[in-house]
Amino acid sequence: MTEDEIVQAIATLCHPERGNVILRPVIIGIGDDAALWQPSRSHRSVISTDMLVEGVHFTRATMSLEDAGWRAMAAALSDLAAMGARPVLATVALGVPAAGGSAEILELYKGIAAAAQRFKVAIAGGDLSRSDAIAISVTVVGEVRPSNVKTRTGGKLGDVLAVTGELGASRAGLEIAAKPGLVDGAGCDAALQALRRPVPRIAEGRFLAASANVTAMMDISDGLSTDARRLCTASDCGADIEDVPVADSAREVAQVLGDDPARFALAGGEDFELLLAIRPRAFRYLAGRYEKRFKQKLLRVGRLVKGRGVAWRGTALDSLGWDHFK
Amino acid sequence: MTEDEIVQAIATLCHPERGNVILRPVIIGIGDDAALWQPSRSHRSVISTDMLVEGVHFTRATMSLEDAGWRAMAAALSDLAAMGARPVLATVALGVPAAGGSAEILELYKGIAAAAQRFKVAIAGGDLSRSDAIAISVTVVGEVRPSNVKTRTGGKLGDVLAVTGELGASRAGLEIAAKPGLVDGAGCDAALQALRRPVPRIAEGRFLAASANVTAMMDISDGLSTDARRLCTASDCGADIEDVPVADSAREVAQVLGDDPARFALAGGEDFELLLAIRPRAFRYLAGRYEKRFKQKLLRVGRLVKGRGVAWRGTALDSLGWDHFK
Repeated sequence: MTEDEIVQAIATLCHPERGNVILRPVIIGIGDDAALWQPSRSHRSVISTDMLVEGVHFTRATMSLEDAGWRAMAAALSDLAAMGARPVLATVALGVPAAGGSAEILELYKGIAAAAQRFKVAIAGGDLSRSDAIAISVTVVGEVRPSNVKTRTGGKLGDVLAVTGELGASRAGLEIAAKPGLVDGAGCDAALQALRRPVPRIAEGRFLAASANVTAMMDISDGLSTDARRLCTASDCGADIEDVPVADSAREVAQVLGDDPARFALAGGEDFELLLAIRPRAFRYLAGRYEKRFKQKLLRVGRLVKGRGVAWRGTALDSLGWDHFK
Repeated sequence: MTEDEIVQAIATLCHPERGNVILRPVIIGIGDDAALWQPSRSHRSVISTDMLVEGVHFTRATMSLEDAGWRAMAAALSDLAAMGARPVLATVALGVPAAGGSAEILELYKGIAAAAQRFKVAIAGGDLSRSDAIAISVTVVGEVRPSNVKTRTGGKLGDVLAVTGELGASRAGLEIAAKPGLVDGAGCDAALQALRRPVPRIAEGRFLAASANVTAMMDISDGLSTDARRLCTASDCGADIEDVPVADSAREVAQVLGDDPARFALAGGEDFELLLAIRPRAFRYLAGRYEKRFKQKLLRVGRLVKGRGVAWRGTALDSLGWDHFK
């Protein structure tokens, strides 16, 4: 296939029905020098870029190319979720080995397009290049009401620190993918799913961002330990982690490996749950509304406190030397 | 340096004075989950992504990392120029070998930031990753008045085909970089400059886009031959190329190599000049205003005609087998 033919095949994959509701704000999509869209007049725009590299973020042994495409899109969308934004469009730059040819490009795009359709984001353009290892760079643009924007900087002393789901499953998936047969059954499936098909918390992020009692929000991409420290640094405070919600699959894998399950949640990373600071008076009410809406709990993990750094059961997390777990 | 320290150093490089005029529409920049900006209410937004890979688009022998950074940003901005848009912000995803460390990341960013400052685009965010070869993916967002948007599709039979500058210098630069001493003097300098520090035609693109007599516009990234064919396919017509404006440096290098100078311009690529279709009645007047404004000529290269494909002096360009010159 020539480059122009590949671009045509990608356009068909990404927009099975042109004029699709997802494409609505996009006026010019794939195929011209740049894509054109009409931003909402009442909202602000949000942009984030994420890069996934073969041999660094994934290997062909741990996931299919379709999974890798999904994962790249999901990771980028998770950053929009963390701002409380609704996704609008995405661009995709792809580096693929010459030997893989158009087949590998289209495999990757199958996963990219599946995630884009699931989370209602139009793929509006991109670039293709040869490269020795696969590199996928996804840029996503979203929109958010000015009053709903959440950053890392607004956390206040006494705020409850909470997460949108249990942690550690993605890291458990990585162990299982590296050593098939380590555990099996439901835990195995859940962990591999968390690794290969992570779900950005778009709807949850928009819901939580609408509350004035949520003072700070971010996504957990490098583990609760590292990301809580980032939120604390930005909000100029410290955090006490009291309780770490560990996914069942992470518990199973940790048990088999003789490791501490909490470590999977604190240092594992790439869970793409949201981490929030919430005014303490408002936590119970918000958690109740959240559970009713999403049929899952908003999980309290600790509190923002005076000082710097993140402590877990009285020990500074930095001192545990878990940073190299990734 | 830790990742957070590198991000801090990048932020300082990109925004030497925070609150800078360039940053005006950007409300949240580098350092949060995503960047936030206020799009203009009267304009449409434009987005384009470009990827530059070491060993494919450049080697360390042909240019410095600073040049590679400039080139990646310039190539992305050239796509905004082709839409008639004003650049607003950019995100940068960078893959860099672990051995290069923070020094190589900051070298690349020096060039990226220099191009961003020259063309008044705010670097609002990005991502960093390890990778075996350097990969730079730049996404740029711009804005354009709805009435000024130019695409590849509007060209009409009889339109004059014109370019914003002489072609072939970048390709000549590649020959010179591969064989130092091939030519020297002003031609050598100009060719290396065209290769390493290409200038996207932002101001020229905005000026030309404001004319209703410009019916189609695109940038020349793959050579006049390939890109004129793309414009023709999109506009459902053919083109007769009558005259190919070859840069002096390309003439010099072609002469030394015993090659056809026209080939450098037609098949060389990466010149980042703009290719336009202009209503024939309006060409002289527009070219006069253009020359007065930019102190350089708008160069007529041919006409849009019935049929398909691009002919040069009566021969179909496809049949010359020049496509593999790149």
